Amino acid sequence: MGRVGRRQRLVVVGGDAAGMSAASQARRLKGVDDLEIVAFERGGFSSYSACGIPYWVGGDVEGPDRLVARTPQEHRARDIDLRLRTEVTELDLDGRRVRARDLDSGEEQWTGFDRLVLATGARPVRPPLPGIDAPGVHGVQTLGDGQALLDTLAATPGRRAVVVGAGYIGVEMAEALLKRGYEVTVLNRGEQPMATLDPDMGRLVHTAMEGMGIDVVAGAGVTAIRTGADGRVRAVEAGDATYPADVVVLGIGVEPETSLARAAGLPLGVYGGLLTDLSMRVRGHEDVWAGGDCVEVLDLVSGRERHVPLGTHANKHGQVIGANVGGGYGTFPGVVGTAVSKVCSLEIARTGLRERDAREVGLRYVAVTVESTSRAGYYPDAAPMTVKMLAELRTGRLLGTQIVGREGAGKRVDIAAVALTAGMTVEQVAALDLGYAPPFSPVWDPVQVAARKAVAAVREAG
Amino acid sequence: MGRVGRRQRLVVVGGDAAGMSAASQARRLKGVDDLEIVAFERGGFSSYSACGIPYWVGGDVEGPDRLVARTPQEHRARDIDLRLRTEVTELDLDGRRVRARDLDSGEEQWTGFDRLVLATGARPVRPPLPGIDAPGVHGVQTLGDGQALLDTLAATPGRRAVVVGAGYIGVEMAEALLKRGYEVTVLNRGEQPMATLDPDMGRLVHTAMEGMGIDVVAGAGVTAIRTGADGRVRAVEAGDATYPADVVVLGIGVEPETSLARAAGLPLGVYGGLLTDLSMRVRGHEDVWAGGDCVEVLDLVSGRERHVPLGTHANKHGQVIGANVGGGYGTFPGVVGTAVSKVCSLEIARTGLRERDAREVGLRYVAVTVESTSRAGYYPDAAPMTVKMLAELRTGRLLGTQIVGREGAGKRVDIAAVALTAGMTVEQVAALDLGYAPPFSPVWDPVQVAARKAVAAVREAG
Repeated sequence: MGRVGRRQRLVVVGGDAAGMSAASQARRLKGVDDLEIVAFERGGFSSYSACGIPYWVGGDVEGPDRLVARTPQEHRARDIDLRLRTEVTELDLDGRRVRARDLDSGEEQWTGFDRLVLATGARPVRPPLPGIDAPGVHGVQTLGDGQALLDTLAATPGRRAVVVGAGYIGVEMAEALLKRGYEVTVLNRGEQPMATLDPDMGRLVHTAMEGMGIDVVAGAGVTAIRTGADGRVRAVEAGDATYPADVVVLGIGVEPETSLARAAGLPLGVYGGLLTDLSMRVRGHEDVWAGGDCVEVLDLVSGRERHVPLGTHANKHGQVIGANVGGGYGTFPGVVGTAVSKVCSLEIARTGLRERDAREVGLRYVAVTVESTSRAGYYPDAAPMTVKMLAELRTGRLLGTQIVGREGAGKRVDIAAVALTAGMTVEQVAALDLGYAPPFSPVWDPVQVAARKAVAAVREAG
Repeated sequence: MGRVGRRQRLVVVGGDAAGMSAASQARRLKGVDDLEIVAFERGGFSSYSACGIPYWVGGDVEGPDRLVARTPQEHRARDIDLRLRTEVTELDLDGRRVRARDLDSGEEQWTGFDRLVLATGARPVRPPLPGIDAPGVHGVQTLGDGQALLDTLAATPGRRAVVVGAGYIGVEMAEALLKRGYEVTVLNRGEQPMATLDPDMGRLVHTAMEGMGIDVVAGAGVTAIRTGADGRVRAVEAGDATYPADVVVLGIGVEPETSLARAAGLPLGVYGGLLTDLSMRVRGHEDVWAGGDCVEVLDLVSGRERHVPLGTHANKHGQVIGANVGGGYGTFPGVVGTAVSKVCSLEIARTGLRERDAREVGLRYVAVTVESTSRAGYYPDAAPMTVKMLAELRTGRLLGTQIVGREGAGKRVDIAAVALTAGMTVEQVAALDLGYAPPFSPVWDPVQVAARKAVAAVREAG
C-alpha cells in the first residue's frame, strides 16, 4: 500500500526486557520506512536477565554473556538504534523530545519522538546508612552489579558474607554465596524470611535455611555498615549486634525508577510506579507507554494496583506496548501475584493474597494448611511440601495459595494462579482434572488436597 | 438428634478406589447406628493403586503392600464390612439385593441394600487370539496380575519381552521391563505410540523410545501367540512377522466392566460405561450410584461422554458418591481429558482435544507446535520440550494441549487443564501470571510460547 504520512520516530527509554521487547515487537509490525526506533540505555548491556544474576554469582551459569537474550548488535541488525551508556536526563512531553547524555563523552542532546516508551525499571532500595556506599557493599540489579560483586569476591580473601534482606533476592543471593563457600548471614528486619508469604509459611523457609547452614537473623534492622582503615566494609551493625562481613549484598527490595516520569508530571501510584491503562498507555497521555519494573499493575484478586517487578511481566508489557505502538492491538489484563523462587533445594511459591492482603481489602476468609508430597507417597523421591490456601468466606472463592517444599513444589502454584485468574472457587479447584501418574503426583494433587480442606473450612465457617 | 427411621444398608460392589472412597466418605458422614456398609471385592486387595504396578514391576517400588492405600483391616476398623474374594454375580434392582459368591467356598448368598454403589472398574482388553491365555502372557490390571507377572519374570530365564500395545500401560511396562534387564519389543497396531496424542507428537515418543533401546514396531497387529511344547509362550505373531518372547505383557487398553450392570438393564453409553448424572447417580435410578473405571464421564471440552479410566477420577467419584449417599452433597462436573505419563526420562502429557477429536465434534481449529525448555535456556539442566496447542478458529478458545519432553515437561499440562476448564482463549493463556524464575521456567512458560503462536495462527486464519 506504500507509506502513509511521514516516517514516525519511537523513542524507548530503558534497554532491558520491557523496552527492547516493545522495540522488537514494534519493528516486527512496522518496517524501517514507517518507523524509526531509537532506544537509550544507561548501562552497558541490553535485553538481559537480571533474574539470572544470583545463578551467575553462584557459579551455576556462565556470565554475563549467557544472560543476554539479544545483543546490541542483534537489535541494531534489526534497525533498532540502540544507544548504550546513554542516560535520558529529561522528558519534555510538550516538546515531544527527550534529552540524553552520553555517559562516556558527557555530551547531551535532545531527540524528538512521536511515540515514547518508558521502561526505566526499578532501583534497589539503598537506605541512607553510614557506610552504605563503601567498597564491598553490593546491589545485584544489573549485569554491571553482578560483575562488580564477582570482582569483589575474587579480590577478597575473607569468607564472611552478610546479606541484608530476606526476600527473593536475599535468599537467592544467600544460596549463591553459600555455593561460593562463604559463611552466610542473612539479616532480616522482619520476623520471618520471604515476607511475600504469610509468617507461618515464612517460618518453614527460615527453618530450612538454617538447616542448610545459612544463619538467618530475625528482627535485625541494619543501622550502619562499618568500614576498616582501607575504607572497605568490615561489619554490619543491626542495633546492638555486629556481624563481621568481608562482603555485603543488599537484597532489601526495589522501587520503581520513575524520577524522570515524576519530574515530567506523569501519573504515579502509591508505590511510586507509573499508572497505565490496559494497553499499557500512560494514563492521560496519548503517545506515551510504560512497562516493566517502573509501572504498577492491576492485581486481579484485590482489585488494587501493586508494584510487582518481575521479568515475566516486563516481557509481556513490552509485547503489548510493541503491538499497540506498531499499529496492532494488545492488552495486559493484570496479575494475580504469582512468584516462585528457590534457596538450594527448597522451593518457595505464592500466588494471590496473603492473610494480611485479604484483610487490607476487606475480604473475610478461611485459611488452611496441608502437608502432601510431590509424587505418589510410595514413589521414589516423593518430596514433602506444605500448601496453604485462602478462600473467601461464604462464596468459597480461591483467594491465594502458598507452597513451600522440595523438588516439584514450586511450579504447582501455576494451578492456583490459573484458577485465581478464572475466579474459581476452592470447590472447583478440588474438582479439576489435573495430570496424575505416580511419578508426577499423588492421586489428589497437593493443591487439591488443600482445596478440599478449604471447602470443608468454608462450609464449617458457615 | 437421635436416629431417624431404621438403620439403612449401603452395598458397594468393587473394593478399589471409587468404591472404598465412597464407603469411607459415607462412613465419615453417617455413623454405624445409621448406616451399615457392606463392600464386596472379588480380588484379594482393596484400595490399591493400580497405576503403581509398572513401578513395582520395574523395581522402583516395593510391592504389593506399599501400593495399598488403606488395608482391609483399616476399613473394617471403621465399621465397613469389606468382603474380599467375594464376587457379586447378580444385581436384583427390583428386589433391592445383590447375589455374591465367596470365591473360596463357592457359597452364594443374597444381600439386601437400601443404596447401591457400583464400582466394578475396567477389564483389560484381551482379544480372542490363539495362545492369549498361555502361561507367560500377562495383563497388569490388578495387584494379583502384578504379582503373577513378577513370578513369571523370576521363573523365566529368557530376557526377551514383548509388550502388546503402545498406550500408557504399554510404554510404562516397556520402561519397567527395560529396567529389569529385558530386551523389549513394543508391538503397536497403529503408526505411532500414544494414540492419545496426535501422530506428530506420538512420533516424538517413538523416536525417544528407540533411543532408549526399546524396539517399537508400527503397524503390528497381533494375530497369534505361539507356545512351545510346555504350553508356555514362545513368540508373538503379527501378520507375517514373528517376535520371539519369553514373556508377553498385554497393554492394549481397558473397557468398562459393566456386565452386571448390563444384565440388570442399567443405562450404558457408547463405550459401554455406566451413565450417571452430575451427582454420580445412575441415570433413572434413585438409589444406585456408580463411579470409577466402570462409568463414562462428561468431557467438558467436546460436550460428549467418554471413558477415561484413571485413578484420580475414581477417587473423586468415590468422594462425591460418599457425600451424596451420606446425606451431604457433591457433584463431579466432568473432565477435560488430562493425562500424564513417562517412559524412562521422557515425559508425555495431554489435555483436551486432539485434532481428530476436534474434527469429530465439528470444531474448526488451528494447531501450532513450539520447542521450548523447562528452565531458562542458560540455567543448568534446562530440558527441551515440545508443546502442541489447538485453538478454535475465530474465537481463539483453547481446545487442547500436548507436551512431550524431559524433566519438568509433564505437569506443565496442568496450566492448560485449568485454562480449558475455565474456557479460556489462547490470548488469555498467553497473558496468564505464571511462576517464573530461571530454575523453574523460561521468562515465557513453554505453554505460553505455544499460546502466543496460537494467537497469531488464529488471527492469520481469520
